[in-house]
Amino acid sequence: MKQLKLSNVPTGNLKKTDFVLENVEMPQIGDGEVLVKNILLSIDAANRSWMQGKTYRDAVRAGDIMPTYAIAEVVESNDERFQKGQIVTGDSVWAEYAAINSKLLTSCPNIKPLSNLLSLYGIAGLTAYHGLMNVGKLKKGETVVVSAAGGSVGLFVGQIAKAMGCRVVGIAGSDEKCSRVVKELNFDSCINYKSGTLLKDLKTECPDGIDIYFDNVGGSILEVVLFRMNMRGRVVCCGAVSQYDGTAPTGPRNLPGLLIVKRLKMEGFIVMDFVKDHLSAIKHMSELQAEGKIKIIEDITEGIENAPDALLKLLSGGNYGKSMVRVCPDPS
Amino acid sequence: MKQLKLSNVPTGNLKKTDFVLENVEMPQIGDGEVLVKNILLSIDAANRSWMQGKTYRDAVRAGDIMPTYAIAEVVESNDERFQKGQIVTGDSVWAEYAAINSKLLTSCPNIKPLSNLLSLYGIAGLTAYHGLMNVGKLKKGETVVVSAAGGSVGLFVGQIAKAMGCRVVGIAGSDEKCSRVVKELNFDSCINYKSGTLLKDLKTECPDGIDIYFDNVGGSILEVVLFRMNMRGRVVCCGAVSQYDGTAPTGPRNLPGLLIVKRLKMEGFIVMDFVKDHLSAIKHMSELQAEGKIKIIEDITEGIENAPDALLKLLSGGNYGKSMVRVCPDPS
Repeated sequence: MKQLKLSNVPTGNLKKTDFVLENVEMPQIGDGEVLVKNILLSIDAANRSWMQGKTYRDAVRAGDIMPTYAIAEVVESNDERFQKGQIVTGDSVWAEYAAINSKLLTSCPNIKPLSNLLSLYGIAGLTAYHGLMNVGKLKKGETVVVSAAGGSVGLFVGQIAKAMGCRVVGIAGSDEKCSRVVKELNFDSCINYKSGTLLKDLKTECPDGIDIYFDNVGGSILEVVLFRMNMRGRVVCCGAVSQYDGTAPTGPRNLPGLLIVKRLKMEGFIVMDFVKDHLSAIKHMSELQAEGKIKIIEDITEGIENAPDALLKLLSGGNYGKSMVRVCPDPS
Repeated sequence: MKQLKLSNVPTGNLKKTDFVLENVEMPQIGDGEVLVKNILLSIDAANRSWMQGKTYRDAVRAGDIMPTYAIAEVVESNDERFQKGQIVTGDSVWAEYAAINSKLLTSCPNIKPLSNLLSLYGIAGLTAYHGLMNVGKLKKGETVVVSAAGGSVGLFVGQIAKAMGCRVVGIAGSDEKCSRVVKELNFDSCINYKSGTLLKDLKTECPDGIDIYFDNVGGSILEVVLFRMNMRGRVVCCGAVSQYDGTAPTGPRNLPGLLIVKRLKMEGFIVMDFVKDHLSAIKHMSELQAEGKIKIIEDITEGIENAPDALLKLLSGGNYGKSMVRVCPDPS
């Protein structure tokens, strides 16, 4: 079977040659393990951040098979909770098959196609939902700005906030993505930050200031947005993709000063912090989807050997929609 | 009478020559105004931050009489709420007398000496109290780190947290200040950040990590402390004095990344946000003082002409205790 190892921990930008594709024997499972056949691999900016050191999980080191969140089918099981043929989700690796500690797996709700379990009904949609509702404590009528607006989380943030009666302004890195989130996803507006006029554009597009900034990027975009926040605004810290793929991170120069002047609250989270609310979130989002208020956009790369390309595309802002890699077709 | 104007808005470090001492006529009061005789001027790092631009108040500009928070005695009043001889507190200026809009003044509780109305029972003590209790939501047994530990707010933060059953570690800029907060004020420990080993020292002095960081300084000290915060720790953003007196602010490079990894919450506030809780806070602090758990430390400079020196001393970390300038003796 095929697998991909991280052969080198990058100190600058991640490169395709930092990965090596290998053909190896199928793994054997031990006590408490489950052999799964990977179907879809989630491609996330977080994959890159794991290479920088220990985060909420151990660092990825040179020689490691690249870890990933995935949708998979059970092939063989040493845990009675999981049966052959069952669809599961959890921590897996960039490989066609993987032997996984059963504690890292959970059973999937019956949602088709399976890709939706990585987008709206998986980490992307749930991250957007919990970030807005439980961290940002969004209220009807507020102005919400979201960066990486065409990214996996951003496009759901905008659609959920819009469905909740907010003004939604995206920030993205191309005119095409900006145009699509406005035309296809009903954002009120979207600013191409590469225009170099972000501060001015935010003033124009957010005439009443910004109440919630859902931050996926950190860095200089965060710095600029902070200047336009309203008193007692909330910054939902979801990601800092601008800081993951390089050597010299830069902190917003107006932190922490502006937090005091404007009485802002910044709070970080990851989706698993709200696991007890997942079911109610999925129910709510499925209602919004049924009403046509949320569209699912996915960016699927075919073939496990192309996983490095998919991650590089995401890190350079090339994806539109939830990025994932298809290893094999959904079982019928 | 004497008054001090800011003659020049500094672009680099504030200098004594940025102020000019003038002898002028006594001010006349108009409708809704009160003529006060200043007794004590509060000297705060915020005085410097006001010169950087609009904050929660208008910027101080060249030619302005330097604004200040002060304790004063009413000399003449065009507002029936205020009578001659009454002691008031509020927005005043660096001058022997001032004509003040009565809306900016409030009557003082009967506390002697009056200097205590600027320290424990004024903005310093109340800032410490509300920051710990209402923003940080301090819990018994937690580890609290406070920067500018020998400063006006910091020394109350440490004493209140200690009285609430927390482990308290200060950060200050001299061995003498560190020694004094431990010996005189019962801090568990205090680290001189100029030693250059802050990260290591925090590990030693906070073996269980840091739950609350009460931040008075921002900048590189904030950056280092963030690395030692516990999961779901709170950063109480009270001030950023390291950023006020210079031209090139620097943001902590691990922001916002570390907020996500550790699920931290950072929140800014100013003391007036909690004005409705002032009385209950004063009652609680007076009980702690009566029990000997809080000592009042004040750093009083005599003579209004020395106000610039007092501010420069504070900005260079030279004060120990709440900094203020005495303009005239307390009335008997």
